Amino acid sequence: MLPSSLQKLIDELAKLPGIGPKTAQRLAVHLLRSPNSRIKPLGEALLSLKDGLSFCEECWYVTETSPCNICSDESRDKTKVCVVEEVLDVVAIEKTGKYKGLYHVLHGVLSPIDGVSADQLKIAELFNRLDRHPEIKEIVLATNPSLEGEATALYIQKYLEGKNIAITRIARGLPIGADLEYADSVTLGKALLNRTDY
Amino acid sequence: MLPSSLQKLIDELAKLPGIGPKTAQRLAVHLLRSPNSRIKPLGEALLSLKDGLSFCEECWYVTETSPCNICSDESRDKTKVCVVEEVLDVVAIEKTGKYKGLYHVLHGVLSPIDGVSADQLKIAELFNRLDRHPEIKEIVLATNPSLEGEATALYIQKYLEGKNIAITRIARGLPIGADLEYADSVTLGKALLNRTDY
Repeated sequence: MLPSSLQKLIDELAKLPGIGPKTAQRLAVHLLRSPNSRIKPLGEALLSLKDGLSFCEECWYVTETSPCNICSDESRDKTKVCVVEEVLDVVAIEKTGKYKGLYHVLHGVLSPIDGVSADQLKIAELFNRLDRHPEIKEIVLATNPSLEGEATALYIQKYLEGKNIAITRIARGLPIGADLEYADSVTLGKALLNRTDY
Repeated sequence: MLPSSLQKLIDELAKLPGIGPKTAQRLAVHLLRSPNSRIKPLGEALLSLKDGLSFCEECWYVTETSPCNICSDESRDKTKVCVVEEVLDVVAIEKTGKYKGLYHVLHGVLSPIDGVSADQLKIAELFNRLDRHPEIKEIVLATNPSLEGEATALYIQKYLEGKNIAITRIARGLPIGADLEYADSVTLGKALLNRTDY
């Protein structure tokens, strides 16, 4: 029905997560009506995405140099490593400006249902890194407060038990702007248990 | 913060309609973790999108040949022209299999609020086409049943009044599977007014 080059673009767009066939159609027709000066940069950005881009061998963050900017930044606190699930979690934490240590990106979470086991994540690389760097004194577990995130945090904590490394977990509690009345009871319970001095 | 090639892709993705900065980030990181065999086809589909692709000079549908497959299809009823807003509306109508005439794509609707007037649409081209093709006996107005769609339909109907061309409008009524109780009163009113013999 549609010309093949348009159909091909729709098919490729529909493979992206969260983009269904209808959205793919709409995006493709939008692009078709855009000038070439709008389409070309996107196409080129895609084709050159991986040029010179890799993951830092130390922390597995995405980088153009290895070790990455964060690992090689001398001003950062090299005694702390914050363990996160995804590359974008690093961006989110960096935006807060409240953390000056290093990172370790797991690239996923333990999820038996999705068939994700420890060897598909960068967990062995984390343990190996701790062995190589005895200066690391604190592991901040910053996986998501979801079932899988908690399980992954627990897995790491169990392994590190007995070693001379402090293990902390980001606080669970009410987000800023939340309403006690509408908070779920697990979150409210955590907020009460983990109350801090005022 | 992020490597420049990744940031560039995020920026380009965020320019697409309905894709905000967060979705763009998520898509870009997803692509980054995909093998090159998944990224390349999308990039190439974008770069070659407009190669040999244009709009049919007759009906303004997207095509690789002019006139397009629909206009040059001898088996179609050339006395009917269905006027639609967008390229994808043609696809939607073709899927029903209930229409065998020709099309005319307006590429938009009259919308004073968005500054879209008749000369930005393919309306003059429609009137011109009717002059050149006296065999056209019916215009099916299939613009959306929205404020702008109705205004555009009315504009075309006013112009064609008095000419020897039947003007019809796609039926407004309850969609299949709808619930009378929850239908809005305008739709229900139209459904009552336009009731058909049973």
